[in-house]
Amino acid sequence: MAGILVIHGPNLDLLGSREPGIYGHIELAEINGKLTEKAQKAKVKIKIFQSNHEGEIVALIGRHKKSVDVLIINPAAYTHTSVAIRDAILATEIPTIEVHLSNIYAREEFRRQSLIAPVARGTISGFGEQSYYLALDAAFEMIKKK
Amino acid sequence: MAGILVIHGPNLDLLGSREPGIYGHIELAEINGKLTEKAQKAKVKIKIFQSNHEGEIVALIGRHKKSVDVLIINPAAYTHTSVAIRDAILATEIPTIEVHLSNIYAREEFRRQSLIAPVARGTISGFGEQSYYLALDAAFEMIKKK
Amino acid sequence: MAGILVIHGPNLDLLGSREPGIYGHIELAEINGKLTEKAQKAKVKIKIFQSNHEGEIVALIGRHKKSVDVLIINPAAYTHTSVAIRDAILATEIPTIEVHLSNIYAREEFRRQSLIAPVARGTISGFGEQSYYLALDAAFEMIKKK
Amino acid sequence: MAGILVIHGPNLDLLGSREPGIYGHIELAEINGKLTEKAQKAKVKIKIFQSNHEGEIVALIGRHKKSVDVLIINPAAYTHTSVAIRDAILATEIPTIEVHLSNIYAREEFRRQSLIAPVARGTISGFGEQSYYLALDAAFEMIKKK
Amino acid sequence: MAGILVIHGPNLDLLGSREPGIYGHIELAEINGKLTEKAQKAKVKIKIFQSNHEGEIVALIGRHKKSVDVLIINPAAYTHTSVAIRDAILATEIPTIEVHLSNIYAREEFRRQSLIAPVARGTISGFGEQSYYLALDAAFEMIKKK
Amino acid sequence: MAGILVIHGPNLDLLGSREPGIYGHIELAEINGKLTEKAQKAKVKIKIFQSNHEGEIVALIGRHKKSVDVLIINPAAYTHTSVAIRDAILATEIPTIEVHLSNIYAREEFRRQSLIAPVARGTISGFGEQSYYLALDAAFEMIKKK
Amino acid sequence: MAGILVIHGPNLDLLGSREPGIYGHIELAEINGKLTEKAQKAKVKIKIFQSNHEGEIVALIGRHKKSVDVLIINPAAYTHTSVAIRDAILATEIPTIEVHLSNIYAREEFRRQSLIAPVARGTISGFGEQSYYLALDAAFEMIKKK
Amino acid sequence: MAGILVIHGPNLDLLGSREPGIYGHIELAEINGKLTEKAQKAKVKIKIFQSNHEGEIVALIGRHKKSVDVLIINPAAYTHTSVAIRDAILATEIPTIEVHLSNIYAREEFRRQSLIAPVARGTISGFGEQSYYLALDAAFEMIKKK
Amino acid sequence: MAGILVIHGPNLDLLGSREPGIYGHIELAEINGKLTEKAQKAKVKIKIFQSNHEGEIVALIGRHKKSVDVLIINPAAYTHTSVAIRDAILATEIPTIEVHLSNIYAREEFRRQSLIAPVARGTISGFGEQSYYLALDAAFEMIKKK
Amino acid sequence: MAGILVIHGPNLDLLGSREPGIYGHIELAEINGKLTEKAQKAKVKIKIFQSNHEGEIVALIGRHKKSVDVLIINPAAYTHTSVAIRDAILATEIPTIEVHLSNIYAREEFRRQSLIAPVARGTISGFGEQSYYLALDAAFEMIKKK
Amino acid sequence: MAGILVIHGPNLDLLGSREPGIYGHIELAEINGKLTEKAQKAKVKIKIFQSNHEGEIVALIGRHKKSVDVLIINPAAYTHTSVAIRDAILATEIPTIEVHLSNIYAREEFRRQSLIAPVARGTISGFGEQSYYLALDAAFEMIKKK
Amino acid sequence: MAGILVIHGPNLDLLGSREPGIYGHIELAEINGKLTEKAQKAKVKIKIFQSNHEGEIVALIGRHKKSVDVLIINPAAYTHTSVAIRDAILATEIPTIEVHLSNIYAREEFRRQSLIAPVARGTISGFGEQSYYLALDAAFEMIKKK
Repeated sequence: MAGILVIHGPNLDLLGSREPGIYGHIELAEINGKLTEKAQKAKVKIKIFQSNHEGEIVALIGRHKKSVDVLIINPAAYTHTSVAIRDAILATEIPTIEVHLSNIYAREEFRRQSLIAPVARGTISGFGEQSYYLALDAAFEMIKKK
Repeated sequence: MAGILVIHGPNLDLLGSREPGIYGHIELAEINGKLTEKAQKAKVKIKIFQSNHEGEIVALIGRHKKSVDVLIINPAAYTHTSVAIRDAILATEIPTIEVHLSNIYAREEFRRQSLIAPVARGTISGFGEQSYYLALDAAFEMIKKK
Repeated sequence: MAGILVIHGPNLDLLGSREPGIYGHIELAEINGKLTEKAQKAKVKIKIFQSNHEGEIVALIGRHKKSVDVLIINPAAYTHTSVAIRDAILATEIPTIEVHLSNIYAREEFRRQSLIAPVARGTISGFGEQSYYLALDAAFEMIKKK
Repeated sequence: MAGILVIHGPNLDLLGSREPGIYGHIELAEINGKLTEKAQKAKVKIKIFQSNHEGEIVALIGRHKKSVDVLIINPAAYTHTSVAIRDAILATEIPTIEVHLSNIYAREEFRRQSLIAPVARGTISGFGEQSYYLALDAAFEMIKKK
Repeated sequence: MAGILVIHGPNLDLLGSREPGIYGHIELAEINGKLTEKAQKAKVKIKIFQSNHEGEIVALIGRHKKSVDVLIINPAAYTHTSVAIRDAILATEIPTIEVHLSNIYAREEFRRQSLIAPVARGTISGFGEQSYYLALDAAFEMIKKK
Repeated sequence: MAGILVIHGPNLDLLGSREPGIYGHIELAEINGKLTEKAQKAKVKIKIFQSNHEGEIVALIGRHKKSVDVLIINPAAYTHTSVAIRDAILATEIPTIEVHLSNIYAREEFRRQSLIAPVARGTISGFGEQSYYLALDAAFEMIKKK
Repeated sequence: MAGILVIHGPNLDLLGSREPGIYGHIELAEINGKLTEKAQKAKVKIKIFQSNHEGEIVALIGRHKKSVDVLIINPAAYTHTSVAIRDAILATEIPTIEVHLSNIYAREEFRRQSLIAPVARGTISGFGEQSYYLALDAAFEMIKKK
Repeated sequence: MAGILVIHGPNLDLLGSREPGIYGHIELAEINGKLTEKAQKAKVKIKIFQSNHEGEIVALIGRHKKSVDVLIINPAAYTHTSVAIRDAILATEIPTIEVHLSNIYAREEFRRQSLIAPVARGTISGFGEQSYYLALDAAFEMIKKK
Repeated sequence: MAGILVIHGPNLDLLGSREPGIYGHIELAEINGKLTEKAQKAKVKIKIFQSNHEGEIVALIGRHKKSVDVLIINPAAYTHTSVAIRDAILATEIPTIEVHLSNIYAREEFRRQSLIAPVARGTISGFGEQSYYLALDAAFEMIKKK
Repeated sequence: MAGILVIHGPNLDLLGSREPGIYGHIELAEINGKLTEKAQKAKVKIKIFQSNHEGEIVALIGRHKKSVDVLIINPAAYTHTSVAIRDAILATEIPTIEVHLSNIYAREEFRRQSLIAPVARGTISGFGEQSYYLALDAAFEMIKKK
Repeated sequence: MAGILVIHGPNLDLLGSREPGIYGHIELAEINGKLTEKAQKAKVKIKIFQSNHEGEIVALIGRHKKSVDVLIINPAAYTHTSVAIRDAILATEIPTIEVHLSNIYAREEFRRQSLIAPVARGTISGFGEQSYYLALDAAFEMIKKK
Repeated sequence: MAGILVIHGPNLDLLGSREPGIYGHIELAEINGKLTEKAQKAKVKIKIFQSNHEGEIVALIGRHKKSVDVLIINPAAYTHTSVAIRDAILATEIPTIEVHLSNIYAREEFRRQSLIAPVARGTISGFGEQSYYLALDAAFEMIKKK
């Protein structure tokens, strides 16, 4: 049975209260609920984590090297600064989808550079919570094509 | 009844034979067929164009200012050079989804800069033909939320 | 009898409805009307075009190489990207006035670079529709000094 | 009765003898004469100053904060180096027209950057002495619209 | 009763022995003692943490979102590299004072860029341990003005 | 029978009258005449176009994907701005020779960057009309080696 | 008896009416009053100047080379452009505190570079009028430690 | 008895399976075994750690400030992003050897900048596992010269 | 009788064995043979040198100041680093053709900048050995036009 | 009788006490004495000024437009920031020698750029007070050659 | 029998007297002696050269294309400027070890860029004379693995 | 008896015939004659060399490490490219005067950067042949002060 790993990066535990003008009012638990439900319907295993620690995210990816088919990651702030997460994706070779709630290309200059995008299969950004559901659909398709 | 405008930028008429390692073997007509079918099922009007001319794309967007709810555009090479298309999106205020077949962030340096992304609602790139279908799903959701 | 060529660049056909906070509510036809009236009073021939196509603007300039004394151009988005229009001005040697409705120097970084300005006789920007009328006055003066 | 403040920046007292290939043969006194005459006809008060001192120009602007409707300034060399004059315009909120005799965009690289333009209402450059008269016309229009 | 959160970033646990030419001979415990004493006199609650972990600092800020009035942070090395801490400050909207023992603007080029400063209320740097006490005074004033 | 496609970019229709100090006095029709004559002698089919439109050039290249062996292109102003023409060459995989009348490396800074050169087989620039004839010789050689 | 020199840079004479959203409503005279009062209590001599002239500020610093213990300077616009003031501080070796009312690091790009900071002992910015009082406290401490 | 601290940075726990074209097939445990054996022969104490956490590495270095003579570190991804590890080396003043398995100068642009190299005694890169053994030899020599 | 000087730059003596994927299998002696033969047919004197020494190339050019009509130079690695060879061409005013075997614009970034091109009459690159023969034809034409 | 104007820029009045490691112990009055003496011997009129004010220096140069043959200027800090002084030299066309006590090319990065050098006849820097005397000799020579 | 070529770049003949703070007191002859002795023990042929001439080093490498197994090179100043030596290494394909006495990454900015490193197998820098001996050990290992 | 070494860099052997608009009509032999004569009068030994070879200049400087008091060098083209000559000056610690015939700061951008200036005692440029004689005077003064 295929498996998907979802990782929410730093500060995403604050979702709902954090700058709602940019990130919306939904809380992370609700998104996770919907993701789980969609995955169950599609009969795909799903594991979801949130972490503020770059090193923990690196370790999480490393630990799932053999057990997942697709990684869906919203690297949040680490998008722009973490070579270590990029290297973890390269090292494990897990096909990866990069997700962003907001359109990072419409924000500050430094948010327009992603260290993760060049090693991801694809990127979905700017659709709020729906970014995650589109990514899950894309992941299902990737699993089907294997 | 809601309406969606799809614009394929320059050289996309060559799809199928063009660098299949990057763009896949599917032809544009097939993608258009699937998009039309999906839109009909969702009871949404859809109009699809391909153009190699920057000015023609500008005019197309201008002409649909009042008649469409969402613009799905794959600006292809004009992604990186066209302020005029960016201005057309700004001038008409049509909510816009930017689509790319390939992951532009994993290619040459100059392809990593998008003049369109900062004025788009969101971006989907790297999933081959599926990028379009995900964009269509996102467009349906945007229409629903209106 | 002296002649003036006026060229309005891409998206200016949308004037009046386009971002009125930046560009005002006047429509292009009104501006053209006032320009024609002023020229008639001054007994100067005037020809006015709007085009969204870079190549068409290049051809327009080329075609009027011998028949006009001054070119008044609002290159709009092509201000920042068109070497071809710059070369057309150089190739025809028509004395040129660059016009902008908005103050391009108070906008995004990339709008502060003009490829046209270095080959223009002068630049007038930021006075809304009046930018055009001041340019016409300047053109009359240039014709007088010949 | 409305009022206009005209400030000529550094070295403009040398006009007439200074690089006539770029700046023409007219002397500053003549320009001032014509400006005064035009203003009198339009029944607008006008005050004209020339200064080589950045600090003096800053003080001049500050001192007229409440007594003028429009500032016409040719900042000359200070165009490219004076944050203080920029701040004086911001601090007094006097609507400002930036004027240049020569086309600064056709000269050395460092002359193409203006610290004043982004806080000005508009810019007129490249028309020799006529740049000032066009600016005065623009100022009359701005006063009229108040 | 108002509350202040003080966070000392990486390597500040080594204070006293670390490059005393730059950072002085005082140990962190002494600074913390004086801060506590000053806060008690002012009848303000104070909580003080030191952490070498970016993720831990992010979590600390997130956890105090509702319980503190001012954050005083010496981000040390993370000043220049942590978008995640910047985002934590943005997400929690806690008014923040950035503190540095040394004058970071007189050191290596890469230490002159602060990712934290643009989201802080203010910055105090270069006064050794006194930087913290001045920040505490500023915090008291901010609490008073609420 | 082998075939060669020759494309002259924007403003080249003005040749002969355009900046003769840089481009010489010969007109485009003469160059085309000599090219046709040389090709006939070599028993190679030749098709020649001039266009001011980027999109038209893109379409021209796309349309000849299967029918020509070599493309000789003088992209003129589009040398420096057109990713779309670059992509057309990549998409059709027609072996391409880039030609310039003037030595573009001895002119303004922005003319020293070619977007076409990296996807061309080779470049010939600076020999006036002879640049074209040398390119034709090179094309004959490329056809022979097939 | 120790002495402190306070210098307010260009446009600070307009305080109170100048962009109150950024600089607050207090006038310079009030700030000076409070500074004088605080200094008298601390039995420290204080001299306060405002100048719009870079050269005057340079001269002021030079003239107090031997008679003051600390310089508190708000260089305002000259922060970003004056090598001469920087050199005056270096030449006189007066320990210097750089003060800003607003957080200059949260404003336009060019305001984030300070030519003064690298030669100052420390910097305090972003606390409105309180920036000055904190600086005065820091100065007292510096005098005490001598 | 002299002591050496060896730290392996993020993702090095995946060695052997990670991009073997770049990093080889050896596993970290084998390298550690050989390092221990070499150190025992040389009668030098050795402690070896692997960590994915920047903060943990910072803490590790801080904790060994007094107990080791040389630090051998392969900072992996943190080479290019960690000011905190750089500061830990500066703060503890432990003589440091930077080691890389691959030749980082032959890889992507961003991998050619090391934040660690300027504070290291020396660097050894590109020799695969042997990089570590050469570093150990260099460390022995440094201990001998003390 | 007219004369041509041909200079092959550093490492070209290794031709044939050097990276044949880029430079082909032909040896320098063969190219020289063909050049000599072509020149003899055209009744033009030809002198050919290969040198690895920048200074020697400078001296060679200087020494032929009066005795040759055209210089054909493949500066190889010195293309990108030698101001001295550029100055030798300027100093002697010998009309110069720059030749490259490979298309330098399709290689590493630093190979895309030529210090020689701006002082050459023209450039031919990317046609392998044929680059030299095309250059010789161009040289014959230049001699004819004298 | 020929005349020379000597201008000492900002902070040079502090010479002797200012950073003697860089500028030496001599005072400005001594240098002026020696310059006067040398000029008298050579029967050349000399006028010497020191000013901290950019505007004053601009005015000084403007005022001597017709009465001096050579300007010797040590622009000090204004070397790097004053377009106005550069323009004064251009406007008056007085042949100018730029002088520096210290070797500005061996100091901070921003001191290596001179706005004055490109409009000066020549530059002498790094010889302490002797820089002035060498400049005076050069000026005598320039006067002789007229 | 395997062979190693050692090349010492410019100014290394001055070793011992040259900036001993950076390069140490050992003379080149001593280093060469130790290298020879080590090679003899390992039964490996070794040839050692020092040259100040870029072209000579290029020729040396070219000449040993077939006769050596490893090149150990300290390119000294040519590290940062010589594309020709880089090309010689590429052209001969001799596996190469880059060696530096000092830690070039802790010196001036321009010394941190190596043109040689990207084409070397590995780099050893910062260990003084020991850098050479470590490189020799690495070379022995490379020969063994063949 | 004190000694001076004069080195003329590449292409200076062509002086007199080389771009006389920039370099004048005097030949190198005349300059050398005048230098020798001046030195003899001053009873200072002088040795003069011209070389086109970077390596030869490096060797020349190295060889005179102990036998000369001052080096006067016109590095010509090597000014902008030679780290090796810079290192030779650093290694030998001979006090050095950099000389240029033309004002390098008024020429092409790349000629405004000198690698030699930061290690020279001083620089004299722009005075034609007189640059050398002023340098000789400066050298006499330096010898006198020893």
